Amino acid sequence: MGKKGIKIVTIGGGSSYTPEFVEGLIKRHKELPVRELWLVDIEKGKEKLEIVGNLAKRMVKKAGLPITIYTTFDRKEALKDADFVTTQMRVGLLEARIKDERIPLKHGMIGQETNGAGGLFKALRTIPVLLEIAEQMHELCPNAWLINFTNPAGIVTEAVMKYSQHKKIIGVCNVPINTKMTIATLLDVPPDQLTITFAGLNHMSYGLDVHVNGESRLNDVIDLVTDPNHEVTMKNIIPLPWEKAFMKALGCIPSPYHRYYYKTNEILQKELEEFKQGKTRAEVVKQLEDELFELYKDPDLDIKPPQLEKRGGAYYSDAACNLISSIYNDKGDVQTLNTRNEGAITNLPNDTVVEVNCVVTKQGPIPLAIGELPYSINGLIQQIKSFELVAIEAAVTGSYEQALLALCINPLITSDVKAKDILDEMLEAHKTDLPQFQ
Amino acid sequence: MGKKGIKIVTIGGGSSYTPEFVEGLIKRHKELPVRELWLVDIEKGKEKLEIVGNLAKRMVKKAGLPITIYTTFDRKEALKDADFVTTQMRVGLLEARIKDERIPLKHGMIGQETNGAGGLFKALRTIPVLLEIAEQMHELCPNAWLINFTNPAGIVTEAVMKYSQHKKIIGVCNVPINTKMTIATLLDVPPDQLTITFAGLNHMSYGLDVHVNGESRLNDVIDLVTDPNHEVTMKNIIPLPWEKAFMKALGCIPSPYHRYYYKTNEILQKELEEFKQGKTRAEVVKQLEDELFELYKDPDLDIKPPQLEKRGGAYYSDAACNLISSIYNDKGDVQTLNTRNEGAITNLPNDTVVEVNCVVTKQGPIPLAIGELPYSINGLIQQIKSFELVAIEAAVTGSYEQALLALCINPLITSDVKAKDILDEMLEAHKTDLPQFQ
Amino acid sequence: MGKKGIKIVTIGGGSSYTPEFVEGLIKRHKELPVRELWLVDIEKGKEKLEIVGNLAKRMVKKAGLPITIYTTFDRKEALKDADFVTTQMRVGLLEARIKDERIPLKHGMIGQETNGAGGLFKALRTIPVLLEIAEQMHELCPNAWLINFTNPAGIVTEAVMKYSQHKKIIGVCNVPINTKMTIATLLDVPPDQLTITFAGLNHMSYGLDVHVNGESRLNDVIDLVTDPNHEVTMKNIIPLPWEKAFMKALGCIPSPYHRYYYKTNEILQKELEEFKQGKTRAEVVKQLEDELFELYKDPDLDIKPPQLEKRGGAYYSDAACNLISSIYNDKGDVQTLNTRNEGAITNLPNDTVVEVNCVVTKQGPIPLAIGELPYSINGLIQQIKSFELVAIEAAVTGSYEQALLALCINPLITSDVKAKDILDEMLEAHKTDLPQFQ
Amino acid sequence: MGKKGIKIVTIGGGSSYTPEFVEGLIKRHKELPVRELWLVDIEKGKEKLEIVGNLAKRMVKKAGLPITIYTTFDRKEALKDADFVTTQMRVGLLEARIKDERIPLKHGMIGQETNGAGGLFKALRTIPVLLEIAEQMHELCPNAWLINFTNPAGIVTEAVMKYSQHKKIIGVCNVPINTKMTIATLLDVPPDQLTITFAGLNHMSYGLDVHVNGESRLNDVIDLVTDPNHEVTMKNIIPLPWEKAFMKALGCIPSPYHRYYYKTNEILQKELEEFKQGKTRAEVVKQLEDELFELYKDPDLDIKPPQLEKRGGAYYSDAACNLISSIYNDKGDVQTLNTRNEGAITNLPNDTVVEVNCVVTKQGPIPLAIGELPYSINGLIQQIKSFELVAIEAAVTGSYEQALLALCINPLITSDVKAKDILDEMLEAHKTDLPQFQ
Ligand SMILES: [Mn+2]
Ligand SMILES: [Mn+2]
Ligand SMILES: [Mn+2]
Ligand SMILES: [Mn+2]
Repeated sequence: MGKKGIKIVTIGGGSSYTPEFVEGLIKRHKELPVRELWLVDIEKGKEKLEIVGNLAKRMVKKAGLPITIYTTFDRKEALKDADFVTTQMRVGLLEARIKDERIPLKHGMIGQETNGAGGLFKALRTIPVLLEIAEQMHELCPNAWLINFTNPAGIVTEAVMKYSQHKKIIGVCNVPINTKMTIATLLDVPPDQLTITFAGLNHMSYGLDVHVNGESRLNDVIDLVTDPNHEVTMKNIIPLPWEKAFMKALGCIPSPYHRYYYKTNEILQKELEEFKQGKTRAEVVKQLEDELFELYKDPDLDIKPPQLEKRGGAYYSDAACNLISSIYNDKGDVQTLNTRNEGAITNLPNDTVVEVNCVVTKQGPIPLAIGELPYSINGLIQQIKSFELVAIEAAVTGSYEQALLALCINPLITSDVKAKDILDEMLEAHKTDLPQFQ
Repeated sequence: MGKKGIKIVTIGGGSSYTPEFVEGLIKRHKELPVRELWLVDIEKGKEKLEIVGNLAKRMVKKAGLPITIYTTFDRKEALKDADFVTTQMRVGLLEARIKDERIPLKHGMIGQETNGAGGLFKALRTIPVLLEIAEQMHELCPNAWLINFTNPAGIVTEAVMKYSQHKKIIGVCNVPINTKMTIATLLDVPPDQLTITFAGLNHMSYGLDVHVNGESRLNDVIDLVTDPNHEVTMKNIIPLPWEKAFMKALGCIPSPYHRYYYKTNEILQKELEEFKQGKTRAEVVKQLEDELFELYKDPDLDIKPPQLEKRGGAYYSDAACNLISSIYNDKGDVQTLNTRNEGAITNLPNDTVVEVNCVVTKQGPIPLAIGELPYSINGLIQQIKSFELVAIEAAVTGSYEQALLALCINPLITSDVKAKDILDEMLEAHKTDLPQFQ
Repeated sequence: MGKKGIKIVTIGGGSSYTPEFVEGLIKRHKELPVRELWLVDIEKGKEKLEIVGNLAKRMVKKAGLPITIYTTFDRKEALKDADFVTTQMRVGLLEARIKDERIPLKHGMIGQETNGAGGLFKALRTIPVLLEIAEQMHELCPNAWLINFTNPAGIVTEAVMKYSQHKKIIGVCNVPINTKMTIATLLDVPPDQLTITFAGLNHMSYGLDVHVNGESRLNDVIDLVTDPNHEVTMKNIIPLPWEKAFMKALGCIPSPYHRYYYKTNEILQKELEEFKQGKTRAEVVKQLEDELFELYKDPDLDIKPPQLEKRGGAYYSDAACNLISSIYNDKGDVQTLNTRNEGAITNLPNDTVVEVNCVVTKQGPIPLAIGELPYSINGLIQQIKSFELVAIEAAVTGSYEQALLALCINPLITSDVKAKDILDEMLEAHKTDLPQFQ
Repeated sequence: MGKKGIKIVTIGGGSSYTPEFVEGLIKRHKELPVRELWLVDIEKGKEKLEIVGNLAKRMVKKAGLPITIYTTFDRKEALKDADFVTTQMRVGLLEARIKDERIPLKHGMIGQETNGAGGLFKALRTIPVLLEIAEQMHELCPNAWLINFTNPAGIVTEAVMKYSQHKKIIGVCNVPINTKMTIATLLDVPPDQLTITFAGLNHMSYGLDVHVNGESRLNDVIDLVTDPNHEVTMKNIIPLPWEKAFMKALGCIPSPYHRYYYKTNEILQKELEEFKQGKTRAEVVKQLEDELFELYKDPDLDIKPPQLEKRGGAYYSDAACNLISSIYNDKGDVQTLNTRNEGAITNLPNDTVVEVNCVVTKQGPIPLAIGELPYSINGLIQQIKSFELVAIEAAVTGSYEQALLALCINPLITSDVKAKDILDEMLEAHKTDLPQFQ
């Protein structure tokens, strides 16, 4: 680490999330003495980068902290001697996400931006860029950790681990911390007395058990999350209630994203309505973002505006900052992260990326052993892992056939014939961001 | 084995398939000297049992062979000192299958009589009966092999292996032999020069490779089966053509039943139409059967009538008789069977039942090692295996929650809420055949 | 936990190690408010129990702490409502260990008191007693943790986990903490900045890597431990130096006990000499113990006497107290313990006991994932695991054949014929302590 | 295959075993129409090659068969368009084996020419040569099968599978067929009614069960092989009797080579005596060979002389010819071979070579699934597999450290210090045959 404090680089620095991250760094400055924060973006995002960069500078100034904010398009300059690199960029911007969601819906299929058809295309666009970043890190800051928030976070992290020389990458998602906070509230216990045994894949991990002070409270939690008076989901997921008897039979806590798989039918109906009204989640998010950037422009704004919460990234900043701090301070606490399995989940290969509880120290994350997954959830996890592996293969090779295969084996795409139609249309729609397929 | 020839017992002897089995035994009498064939059925099936029994007697008489045909409702009398027991019964008769298919469709879901919701209920009805048979065999003919054709054949076989003291059970299906015969025809080679490396689960096994005289012809076969001029399926599966690019990407030969999973959308549309017209597969089969039994009654009929082929059981008799003969004669040839995995497919537990190529001798079937499944097909196989394991748990325990869970994790049931509706309606509809749920 | 402080029960309380344990509890009283310490022993050990109990009382009194010391032969009375139970008893006393070591040597084989022939007999004598204790805990203090120090600690822990209803057992050994302290000294770094990735079985675990502040110092440590100027072993292991080139090739840090396997030849020569002189380790220990008890008797002694260190139990007290404190205080720190594998070491079954780094909270220890063992060390670990599994089988069933098999597959017993001679002589010598073999 | 018959190439054609192989080919000419047999050797072996070549020609002539015998030093000429290549060469000739056995014994350790220190050096000398042959085959006869008899057969086969582009290699040993013949005689049943379930590694495989006509006769066989009236071993293994109680406890049939591991002590004593008398097995074999070649020179000899049997290669010819014939004729029978595991033995990696029963067709050998090894034998098999893997690494890289590691983890070398002495002396003694270590 730099002698005089930490250098952090944020790729996709012009994101609307950045003020939340900056707030997190400011709050933790005592334990996490950041010296420099580099916000990197592409020229196309120039305006947003400036708006966000200026807000960040005002926030730091107000806090009276010796953090220097840099904005740049020159990624290599930024990466030089970095201690931590965070990635939160969106290749193709929100316009790409709108296509990811709308094109499959046009063909009667859910687009789902992380594990579904949308997720496949986000992976195809993102992985080559992340691999390039990782290689540059290998050269310019080989000891730095790459903290990847870019979705599909599990797939992207696995691609970098397998295909880059830079192995120090961790995939992060705010779903586990969100779930923990929600359940702590439902149980009315302080979060630090609560342990949820998360196991699975990103946006596909289950809470296998819930302990408070060493005792299991799983059954209470299942009762609470299926109580129609509680709404337990996240901003970006349609809040359909779980069938109580199913939840009891499942015997563990699903992710909000599991609704896509256990309620495909209802989600599809809802999304087809939104599609018709031009109100898919991507379109709603775009409008929210436009509003946020209007707020960010205000030269008198020097804190994170409260409206940011609607955006769906609750605890995103905590997830990122806690991770960075635990590595920097060699804390040894437990966080839920995407990293190499190494046997933690016996049903999955050692070299694949899983989302599990990890001890975090200067060595990075080390997963806690889970053992064998309950057989009732193993099937779905394996199916999504198959999809992830084929998606990575497609992204790295640019193979049309592998991309088609990824769609066909995805449980949200229920027709090989329509899969081909969707693929052809999406390859065309995203072609400028998919050089490997040319 | 009995000194003076083989004693075979067929449970569900009144089935329309029996004449085909009898024909197979007659053809092979030289290598398979059957002394007694006991056709066992329940009193409710008395009329059919008599019709079939009389036809069988006429067939044997015409062939001039010393095979005695017995018909009985007394299963224990029949089982005493049997050498082989075959099961082809349908608990609840075809009426039950009609409900298995129609009730899910009423709720907008595919009923699929083996791996889908229909398959779950067939398993729930069948497993307790098979366990009873197996226990009786353990007492009355402990050295006899139980050759199980009753669907869902893989699930039923696994339930018996895990929950009965009688471990000598083999699950048989005519899909692999059918596929082999079809591909031999397509390639224009004699079937005995063709080897297909089947791997997976019943109605869920893939041909991983195809060899003719030691050389792989896989790519030729993929070209042929996706050629729109060929129709490669089975009588009981809607013959929708495969998307060629998908098939090439998949890189192996799917089962006809895989259409349910890779073409769910199209199959559902077709089945909903059939549902409206009262022409689901079960209803069609019922009509075919009625016609067949009319034929069987003809006292002049003393051969298997050619109309039986429409019924969908092509090579069913060959599959059964080849298996019995290889065990009896210690042949050591390779057949595709449902048996304990024992590592043959590395991705699945050793103690689970898989459908793979086996060497068949007097010791029974020993699977040939496959190694790891391609990751692109592993996901779906794991998901169906999850379903199978939960289904067995539900069948053995009579647990409402496990039955609901089985439906919810089945890829053909896309809603936890509708799963509960379907479950409740089906439990009511089948209640006389589901004592364990009372 | 009891409202007014912790109740600890120590089985084998009359051991010479007890004063060290008491010292550890006194030092930690602030974080570990012990209310009662029950020292339990058998009537045969009455005199020692009284000596040790009185010393413990004097130590507590000097410290001015509200800890009540009880001595009793009534184990059930002691166990009632205990919070923690520690076991450090030696069935058959030191006389038994002398036989464990001398009888094999008489036949030209190493007796090795944990993983060798001696270890087998210690397991055979100990497991039935531990199973009885565990069952009593299940009834009298079902929430208490059983902290097992009794050797062979891994084998005993696995036997209880598999054959008792009381699953809350942890096997503890002072080798890992000793190794850590030694290496911290060699590297001249504070122990809390050092992490050693231990993996294997008890007395058979390797340090796969050594990190200081997140960086690997493995190569430095290999250089240091093979430097002839350092003696890196434990009191109870003959301090033969490692061959430097071998250690570099091995690429990880062996346990002091590994000398038995990589230096069998030299160890055997040394032990045969000791045997002839009546100075086997057991005999030396017996003399040390006699001297210690003389010291303990001194009514003016109210601290742990420094001479105890020679006995070979360095850090034994820290290992025990740290574990108890981390569970009691839900610390979440990392300790090296013997617990169920659950995939932590991919090469070993999930349900077997391994010695690995664990996060320790109120839930007990959860292993950190290791992944696959280097293939160069996997073989020996597997061989000892085979031995352990057969030894447990022998201990639980009292099978002569399994006991013989355990000896024959042990790498320190190099003759099936002599194995039988040793077995017969040892079964006779220990017969009063081996009721299951009668 | 060649249109006008089969072309076989034998590397190490000047071996004393060749007449047996030729006899096997002559006997089977009807099913195995060999057109050309090329005997290839090195110039140093010129005299033997000529003697053997001439005897082979006389044998073929006497049989009146159209097989042409070629002798050559030009391996590439021989390999061109071969159908089968067999390897039975000994790099360094019998002089090297004498060193392999005598040098370790000088240091008090067993040399064991396949799995011990001798086996390591044989592997180090042989693997580079075999890799060269395999690469030449890849170029000159890519469809030909390499049938490897060269010891250590399992290690050599695995090295070629992992490091050569030519994957069509099968390791063959005459121990399994020998064991089968011996047990058939003991049970007094025809060999073709007997099935032994072999599982393990070369010279390290166990007969897990023995079936006659589908029924287990394992217990009878254990009684018979431990009956002091029977001597069940092979010519090259000291015939020490097994301890009956141990054998019953083991519950399966060991290989004759297992005496090295379960009777290390007795074998070492015997070998040290032989060493002193200059009568190690290698020295005895050398003398036998000299005598054989004297016989072979006799221009009137036109059959395999009966004295060859003493040499220890009983059924060697059958093992080779049966394998070639089953591939050529697509027989589909079961033979015990060394090939890729692919899950057959669940405890070992899929990509490692094991010795198991295989179905043999034109596709080559496909292993029959074994499942999990009994835990009592798993340990030793894993330890030898560790040794094999390190040995391959050493052979391919020429790493001194890996070679030392291989010796140290071998159960027959019981001292890291002596391992280094042995290594240094053997590297010097064999240096002309170990170019990779220069
Ligand atoms: Mn996320
Ligand atoms: Mn079928
Ligand atoms: Mn210890
Ligand atoms: Mn051999």
